[in-house]
Amino acid sequence: MATREPTRIEGLTRQVRARIASRALGPGDRLPSVRRFAELMGVSPSTVVEAYDRLAAEGLIRARRGAGFYVTDVGAPPLSLSDAGAPRERIVDPFWVSKQSLDAEASVVKPGCGWLPAEWMPEAALRRGLRNLARADAAALTYYGGTRGSLALRRHLLARLAAEGVEAALDQIILTGSGTQAIDLICRLLLRPGDAVLVDDPCYFNFQALLRAHQVRIVGAPYTRTGPDVAAFERVLAEEKPRLYVTNSAIHNPTGASLSPQTAHRLLSAAAAHDLAIVEDDIFADFEPSPSPRLAALDGLDRVIRIGSFSKTISASVRCGHIAARRDIIEGLIDLQVATSFGGPSPVATELIAGVLSGGSYRKHMEELRRRLTKARRTVGERLDRLGLESWTEPRGGFYLWRRLPGACDSAEVAKAAMAENLVLAPGNVFSVSQTASGFMRFNVAQMADEGVFAALERAMERAALSAAAAGL
Amino acid sequence: MATREPTRIEGLTRQVRARIASRALGPGDRLPSVRRFAELMGVSPSTVVEAYDRLAAEGLIRARRGAGFYVTDVGAPPLSLSDAGAPRERIVDPFWVSKQSLDAEASVVKPGCGWLPAEWMPEAALRRGLRNLARADAAALTYYGGTRGSLALRRHLLARLAAEGVEAALDQIILTGSGTQAIDLICRLLLRPGDAVLVDDPCYFNFQALLRAHQVRIVGAPYTRTGPDVAAFERVLAEEKPRLYVTNSAIHNPTGASLSPQTAHRLLSAAAAHDLAIVEDDIFADFEPSPSPRLAALDGLDRVIRIGSFSKTISASVRCGHIAARRDIIEGLIDLQVATSFGGPSPVATELIAGVLSGGSYRKHMEELRRRLTKARRTVGERLDRLGLESWTEPRGGFYLWRRLPGACDSAEVAKAAMAENLVLAPGNVFSVSQTASGFMRFNVAQMADEGVFAALERAMERAALSAAAAGL
Repeated sequence: MATREPTRIEGLTRQVRARIASRALGPGDRLPSVRRFAELMGVSPSTVVEAYDRLAAEGLIRARRGAGFYVTDVGAPPLSLSDAGAPRERIVDPFWVSKQSLDAEASVVKPGCGWLPAEWMPEAALRRGLRNLARADAAALTYYGGTRGSLALRRHLLARLAAEGVEAALDQIILTGSGTQAIDLICRLLLRPGDAVLVDDPCYFNFQALLRAHQVRIVGAPYTRTGPDVAAFERVLAEEKPRLYVTNSAIHNPTGASLSPQTAHRLLSAAAAHDLAIVEDDIFADFEPSPSPRLAALDGLDRVIRIGSFSKTISASVRCGHIAARRDIIEGLIDLQVATSFGGPSPVATELIAGVLSGGSYRKHMEELRRRLTKARRTVGERLDRLGLESWTEPRGGFYLWRRLPGACDSAEVAKAAMAENLVLAPGNVFSVSQTASGFMRFNVAQMADEGVFAALERAMERAALSAAAAGL
Repeated sequence: MATREPTRIEGLTRQVRARIASRALGPGDRLPSVRRFAELMGVSPSTVVEAYDRLAAEGLIRARRGAGFYVTDVGAPPLSLSDAGAPRERIVDPFWVSKQSLDAEASVVKPGCGWLPAEWMPEAALRRGLRNLARADAAALTYYGGTRGSLALRRHLLARLAAEGVEAALDQIILTGSGTQAIDLICRLLLRPGDAVLVDDPCYFNFQALLRAHQVRIVGAPYTRTGPDVAAFERVLAEEKPRLYVTNSAIHNPTGASLSPQTAHRLLSAAAAHDLAIVEDDIFADFEPSPSPRLAALDGLDRVIRIGSFSKTISASVRCGHIAARRDIIEGLIDLQVATSFGGPSPVATELIAGVLSGGSYRKHMEELRRRLTKARRTVGERLDRLGLESWTEPRGGFYLWRRLPGACDSAEVAKAAMAENLVLAPGNVFSVSQTASGFMRFNVAQMADEGVFAALERAMERAALSAAAAGL
């Protein structure tokens, strides 16, 4: 046993190094406590202490007195070929929910995931679309497609923008491989490592994961029930000089809140004063009963870049995102998309999406979805009320509820306890740059039709409370 | 007219700035000559001189006595929101062929493009696959899919690797959105801005475009008929200390040459001595009559990362790439793919590809393709011989011929003249880091079935020779 210790220490240091290299752990992130990491890895606490000491000696992490170990800002060193690999357990971080949800077995219930159940999606339209595609032009089935993507789909998006009050031309739109890829391309064009980027606190957890991949500094402004706290927003602009702000104006992820007209106007004025670019991720647009204020509409696509996708409303399997922006930005994005993906999104995917949208059924599908979601938000909301999970705001639409846990419950501990219940949850701090949302949890109401989910959640909360009490002894 | 000059100057400076920001123009790249840029933009040469002077004053470009203007290495400054946009004409660079080919009208003939005509692709199998998909599980049609991608397709790839002598496990493979995205992810994991990356000279032009997007230094080693010049390769490793080498071992793009066993062994020894990682892009694997030496097979996926895609053999519209590598590298890539694409490739795409591969028809399709290509290489080769385009090597397979133009013909000038003939060509220097391939042209034999293409090529060569002679007066 003793002879194996050095290998175990190396195994641990390799894992931490690999996570820093892939930016799963970024500057300022806290490592798991010695006790927890030892438990996770099935090694003795002294092995973890030795591994952390070595990493600290390398300058990769630093101890803060009484507060554990943190990743330093030496930057994410590239993975060296001499770092051999080992399977690794995950701690709860922005990647945790993504991977837990994406890779879950079909039997796992996922109130923490960010999509609708398959049976809520326009399955018949998709099947019809595939049958139509089977008869499509050979070029659509075999060629890369143009650099801007399907003309039919771009025309459709243009009409939608016009209906929202955004005047744009066809050459102000490109299609991308997905909504995430849309933001990724924009970051590549507008950001350089070390730049500051502003996000809402809390915000969609993958914004953080994505921004880490760009090695930028992530700064947050507290999100209120009417959008970001404008005074804090202005202070961050003055102090941190971020180049970019990434947000959802309508049905904000994770809170479900929407931007008020006053906040929208003040944000844009502050952005103009600091030459700040804004990515408005409008992925939940179609879930609103009626359009709420949009930065893109007020700004007229000058400093606002509007993105979206069809993953939440049509299919996350047939992936396609879109960007509407100023022409010069679009031109730069086209080059980058050619360089990094060779061309635009899959023509098979864009044909399929365009087909579903052009059929008359999409409007009815969305009406039905909104109706079902209104009902599910009410039903699930009432059940969460009864469990003592307090409402933060009543969303105008969509499938998220942002709830405060009772007492001093740590939602990450609840999420971990829930795994034993075959339940994937989305604890508050995966959304929070400042790590101040440990008392919150995001729930996807469409994934909570199974009655058992509430009992399982209750057991997980009890177990987390018990172990918190035990640790406090 | 005079009053419009300042606006025109600004228009030109903005365009150059946008191209530098998007890395379409990288450090060391030459700007178009004053005369050519003036012609392209329809402005007076003095306007161009003034624009170049301003950019030089900003430090973005620098004049070299008697040799024109070059982009400096101040790095690609991010696009500022105060840079307004304007449509831009392209000069011949690594993006030129991509965009010309991808966005060409159907009537344009494209001996410069990198794919097969639709009628050479397995159309029937794709249509059958789409009809099968229309009956697939709703989950496959609507969900994101797992982070590693379709198990069936990974199993298929594993069996193929084993047949090539590469022993790997299932968790050493991930699927990606495309072959290009596979390299892009690897660059993100292993590289940091300013690192040196080694490519073959010449190499696939999009390697350069992609590497520029990562802001790395691109260094080249001359490619010979048996792989890179090993002495030059070793010298570059010692002098430039590249972290990564990106290559095609089999049926190299653009030359069609394949690696010899001796060169493969010496490359790997040199790589080991310098801790160099290697990306082996095996996209043309299935076009070989029998497998040639592979770095991945010799190395056993230790420092070699093997990538590929189905864009050349099944469909470029249904996009899917794959990576086989060491486990720790795969783990890092999974995180990055989640962060930048939210999940793996489209399940609809991977199901479709897996379906085509599992049907018995794929083997027959490839046999037929190889037979047709052998014939087309011979027929087109003879026609090019007659036009005085000299063979450099006889490829073992695939659709490219790398030919030397007669006399002092500049292939970029021929490519530009060919546009008037509705012909997209791939001039040698778009493949060459050192810009020493102006006398070469890459031809895609599968796109040259139309008899008229040779007469059009001849006219373009004559016109280019005439204008070269006129410029020399």
